[in-house]
Amino acid sequence: MQETRLSTARIRAARQVIDPVFLDTPLYRCEALEPALGCTVSIKLETANPVRSFKGRGTEVVASRLAEHGPRAVVCASAGNLGQALAWSGRGRGLDVTVVASRFATEAKLDRIRALGAKLELVDGDHEMARERAAAIARDDGIRLVEDSLDIETCEGAATIGLELVDSVPSFDTVLIALGGGALATGVGHVVKALAPEVEVICVQPEGAPAMTRSWHGRRVVTTDSTDTIADGVAGRCPIPAVLDDLLVVADDAVLVQEASIIAGMRLLHDHAGLVVEPSAALGIAALLEDRDRFAGRHVVTIVCGSNVDMGAYHRWVGR
Amino acid sequence: MQETRLSTARIRAARQVIDPVFLDTPLYRCEALEPALGCTVSIKLETANPVRSFKGRGTEVVASRLAEHGPRAVVCASAGNLGQALAWSGRGRGLDVTVVASRFATEAKLDRIRALGAKLELVDGDHEMARERAAAIARDDGIRLVEDSLDIETCEGAATIGLELVDSVPSFDTVLIALGGGALATGVGHVVKALAPEVEVICVQPEGAPAMTRSWHGRRVVTTDSTDTIADGVAGRCPIPAVLDDLLVVADDAVLVQEASIIAGMRLLHDHAGLVVEPSAALGIAALLEDRDRFAGRHVVTIVCGSNVDMGAYHRWVGR
Repeated sequence: MQETRLSTARIRAARQVIDPVFLDTPLYRCEALEPALGCTVSIKLETANPVRSFKGRGTEVVASRLAEHGPRAVVCASAGNLGQALAWSGRGRGLDVTVVASRFATEAKLDRIRALGAKLELVDGDHEMARERAAAIARDDGIRLVEDSLDIETCEGAATIGLELVDSVPSFDTVLIALGGGALATGVGHVVKALAPEVEVICVQPEGAPAMTRSWHGRRVVTTDSTDTIADGVAGRCPIPAVLDDLLVVADDAVLVQEASIIAGMRLLHDHAGLVVEPSAALGIAALLEDRDRFAGRHVVTIVCGSNVDMGAYHRWVGR
Repeated sequence: MQETRLSTARIRAARQVIDPVFLDTPLYRCEALEPALGCTVSIKLETANPVRSFKGRGTEVVASRLAEHGPRAVVCASAGNLGQALAWSGRGRGLDVTVVASRFATEAKLDRIRALGAKLELVDGDHEMARERAAAIARDDGIRLVEDSLDIETCEGAATIGLELVDSVPSFDTVLIALGGGALATGVGHVVKALAPEVEVICVQPEGAPAMTRSWHGRRVVTTDSTDTIADGVAGRCPIPAVLDDLLVVADDAVLVQEASIIAGMRLLHDHAGLVVEPSAALGIAALLEDRDRFAGRHVVTIVCGSNVDMGAYHRWVGR
């Protein structure tokens, strides 16, 4: 494999500093989903932890290193899950955490960030504006900026999921990964391609937020002017060049899915797996629904990456 | 501690024969639930596995021993979860599994039992009639009868949850356990009382199926003529004397909860924990709702023990 910014040794080291509550998450076959999807489906469940998303793996790495020898204050931009996880990891280590988010972010996520004791600043724009504002705060206040997917700790944390996947028995053919900023996809992808290269790594993004997918296909950064998706967790417009470079090494494909498929995926996970998930976590199931022929007869793992969702919106979308 | 039928050494040995997919399940604090409940709440999640309940732990012990040196055919009565788990464990080992259930059992459970390749026989009565019929099949056909809660393997399997609880950091004050036949309560209770006797063991049963709770309070077997609860997984009428004896040793209390509280508990777990659960799995939350003063300020673990539920019924009950 070509090099990426990640190293498998550093990812193994990251495992040592992550609170065990985020590690060794369930990985199990969900046969009740299979008649609707036409393939063998296993779920890697990243929602049964105190912040209900995989982001705690990365923020544990960030916060543990800061607690050792860094500034005691940290700021990040977040659609909500990174902020919640950073607030949790920072609280346990006495760090001063500021989260910048769009005022249009999911209310349930913002509520949890506040409840965890972080300072929350809302910007009157989208996630890219929140990123700019967080960078300005870091610059002005001289505190540590955590940039999701760019900061290697966020990728290393996510990559520990990959270690758990490749250690699993029985093995699988394909892993479907929600694609947003790219920490999850490049992290898991790096480990899979390093240790189980025969497994296919497929990234999934909404058609309404296709910047990284288009960038991957074009092999150069493509930005978009806006996003239009319910999958708030992956709704970026401006891919980070270094992350794209890594994604070009580790991903076998990147596909776009429709909103209706995301909702159908959420509904399937509710009714047949007993899981209330946020839209980003249903991207893998959406990809299976949209291309049954491609996956027929294969064993596919989908990472259920988050379950922070406003109940009112969930009910409107899913009817549950 | 007085002796029970269980031994901690045998429970540790049981761990070795259980498929890891059922072990080391998530245990995590769920702060979003806490404002409604007035105490610190951690969830022990037993639903993120191929059969969506804790019963796989016990059936793995049963099936592994049968596969070594027993008959190749086995029958059990089940409200659905034991049957599904036995079907799963038996399929992996080439055992011939028959499940007897009430024709009023939860359809989703019966569907999964069939899908897993077990022979399903329905009786025109309740769970106690299914128990009688299963015993008759075992006698007539000379095959192994698995009696939930009476057969020590079912208790030992459930008890492995207890090992995982007492190994946890930080520790907790109370564990709330759904009480049906008693395998879960006596199994987990045995380990907790043996290894962390300061932790309070509280069993929770529906008011509509109070036989074992009444028996515990009366210190002798009390049966009831009927049951009236949506919590199908714990709706027995005829406690097993040997199981009651163990429960008298390990339980600090047994409480009854109302149907409305069970439904409120299911709703809280849906909206604040992202979990679709069956009624039995919400008994612990129901107990917290019914007696906030008792648990105020304490750290309570509740075992979310199953999530097999008919979606139509779920929607009618919970409105989700």
